[in-house]
Amino acid sequence: MILLKNVLLQDQPACILTDGGRIARISREPFSVPGAEEMDCTGKAVIPGFVNMHTHAAMVLLRGIHEDLALYDWLSRIWKIEAGLDRDFIYWATKVACLEMIRSGTTTFNDQYWYCPHTRRAALEMGMRPVVSFIFLDSHDPELALRQREACQRLYRRTQEEWGDDGLFAISIHSLYTVSEENIVWANSFAVDHGLKVHLHLAETSQEFEDCKKAHDGLTPTAYFDRLGVLGSHVIAAHSLYLDDDDIYTLGKRGVNCVHNINSNLKLASGFRFRYNELRDAGANVCIGTDGAASSNNLDMLDHMRNTALLQKAWRRNPTEMPLQELFDCATEHGARALGLNTGVIKEGALADLSLVDITGTTFLSPGSVAANLVYAAHSDVISDVMIDGKWVMRGRRIPGEEEIIAGARSVLKQI
Amino acid sequence: MILLKNVLLQDQPACILTDGGRIARISREPFSVPGAEEMDCTGKAVIPGFVNMHTHAAMVLLRGIHEDLALYDWLSRIWKIEAGLDRDFIYWATKVACLEMIRSGTTTFNDQYWYCPHTRRAALEMGMRPVVSFIFLDSHDPELALRQREACQRLYRRTQEEWGDDGLFAISIHSLYTVSEENIVWANSFAVDHGLKVHLHLAETSQEFEDCKKAHDGLTPTAYFDRLGVLGSHVIAAHSLYLDDDDIYTLGKRGVNCVHNINSNLKLASGFRFRYNELRDAGANVCIGTDGAASSNNLDMLDHMRNTALLQKAWRRNPTEMPLQELFDCATEHGARALGLNTGVIKEGALADLSLVDITGTTFLSPGSVAANLVYAAHSDVISDVMIDGKWVMRGRRIPGEEEIIAGARSVLKQI
Repeated sequence: MILLKNVLLQDQPACILTDGGRIARISREPFSVPGAEEMDCTGKAVIPGFVNMHTHAAMVLLRGIHEDLALYDWLSRIWKIEAGLDRDFIYWATKVACLEMIRSGTTTFNDQYWYCPHTRRAALEMGMRPVVSFIFLDSHDPELALRQREACQRLYRRTQEEWGDDGLFAISIHSLYTVSEENIVWANSFAVDHGLKVHLHLAETSQEFEDCKKAHDGLTPTAYFDRLGVLGSHVIAAHSLYLDDDDIYTLGKRGVNCVHNINSNLKLASGFRFRYNELRDAGANVCIGTDGAASSNNLDMLDHMRNTALLQKAWRRNPTEMPLQELFDCATEHGARALGLNTGVIKEGALADLSLVDITGTTFLSPGSVAANLVYAAHSDVISDVMIDGKWVMRGRRIPGEEEIIAGARSVLKQI
Repeated sequence: MILLKNVLLQDQPACILTDGGRIARISREPFSVPGAEEMDCTGKAVIPGFVNMHTHAAMVLLRGIHEDLALYDWLSRIWKIEAGLDRDFIYWATKVACLEMIRSGTTTFNDQYWYCPHTRRAALEMGMRPVVSFIFLDSHDPELALRQREACQRLYRRTQEEWGDDGLFAISIHSLYTVSEENIVWANSFAVDHGLKVHLHLAETSQEFEDCKKAHDGLTPTAYFDRLGVLGSHVIAAHSLYLDDDDIYTLGKRGVNCVHNINSNLKLASGFRFRYNELRDAGANVCIGTDGAASSNNLDMLDHMRNTALLQKAWRRNPTEMPLQELFDCATEHGARALGLNTGVIKEGALADLSLVDITGTTFLSPGSVAANLVYAAHSDVISDVMIDGKWVMRGRRIPGEEEIIAGARSVLKQI
């Protein structure tokens, strides 16, 4: 049991007790509990752990290598490098990614990358909550498609035996342009039959949107996936950037989880007119992700929250768009809801996934709310402590094992 | 004399000697100088000090107070607060701003705010290079206009007597909608006659653009200032956001210094289609500024550099836009050129204004360039040491007097 005393919760002092991985009690009045480890949090605010809903975590070691390139030029260079990476690379790179995610207050992430058991192992060792997935990406090759179905079944059996039903395994359908129709349908059925989430890229670029319409009788990417029966509340649709009004109606009606990845969209020049209001009003569940750090270029949810809000205000020419509370909800609770996890909220009974923010610096001097100054003025270095599942994974910005991780990363970087 | 050994300069090791406020010698080969204080900079890179070309520094204590409001609603609330501020507020708030600027690697800033001698005093005490200005803002009131001309002359005489010709005093013409035509012309002539820069807001919003055309026979804000004979290479034009092709030709021909303030433009929903390429090609000198922290919401040049590049790529739908070297030039050398100061560059003979970047963390593990990882992935907390005029103003992220400044700020915050 850990008792956080004198901590600011939504700008008012509170006292928070965690017990067995859960938030057990919250009170505005101070209280004590025999046997609880007390922590005086004067000068600190508490926020829910961020839920990063779209990552390719291990790409963190590929960032900054090629900058200022056109998309397909960039992609072909990255793919060439990726072809040479092994499991050790994934393991150590994921550890680096976890270091950076923890440091910036992320407690849960929804990943899509190769060798996913190694991603999981690295993240669990760091104390994080990783959702990893088997990736379907067959390049429309029927033989590869068949092999992937077999591999998916094998991996699923292994997860059942070794991981149990912990809700941290999902199925990725990379995209409509990289996966055969047969496998899209098969993978989705497999996921639905086994109660797994489906993680996919949807309508990221205008080219994908136009190409899909040409290839599929005028169907947009959203309409195409819907015709295949894929869309539902089990689907986590990264990007969801190119949508017409019918698409928005569909995504809302199906209760799809749409993940906005603003910095990646900006940097790759994919676009920025993410239709947040319309998706929200239609009933879709809007979340925030960082995408891989090779394109975004970091895994810092605060950076992405800030730019999400700035761009919503800017492209709609209305500074009242994306108010702070909704922004926080997208970065926390909404992601938790998409993953079916009781995290992303400071509430009795929820998982004890939270961060402490040091508000003694100049950034928080003005009488603005902690949320406003945290998102718009501060950086993640004000996050001093992070707790996941009731255990501290960072104390005073120190994460155990950092030096070993950097050494491990340096050794696998020779593969590039 | 200070000798920086084993420091990375544009990704290659170098040895840099400073002497009497200047960079005296740079060599790729190690060297020693008798009497020089040696500093082993292994694990650090050196970058020029940033030149923040548009600030209202003291507004740093007004940030986050009102968020998610429409522009005029926000402005009217801010103006009400500003009316009650005194010199002490300006002094302590500027000190807070300087803390934040130094911490994020800014060594020179070009300010526009009330009680400018107090801004200057606060900044000089911190070791910074502040350009401050007398502000013309008469709300078209002839009596106030006259009083401002007299006040300007008095202040100028005082700067001559007390400050000397140090190039750190300028004239601000707030904007075409807040200053009478008579005073715009008078203030510009005064500046030209005395060899001073003119700092003004130009074409920040579409409303300013349209209102100007209505009020002045179809003249755009740029054309209007040009008709009044104001535009020249002594002019620092903040925002320069709403420009037609003729305006760009004019700004280029006159050699105007155009300052882009992306985060303020995004957050206030003013716009984002800053025409960098066209301005550069026409011959204008493009710089970067943060604007005041009440709207931007911080004074961190790295944040603004990143978003400048992201938005250039995004709105032009071309990821090759705004390559890193040009981005750095806009944030450093171009500002120095606009102000007529020999700073913003690591070069023999230049002012010794520079920052050291700690590259031992995970952000710099990948083989990308220091510049790429600094701008796109890191935050300013990797800036470990800052030197201005050959003197350290920050060592290991410690700035002398920080506690006293926070206490001073708290005392004047009671004015709000």
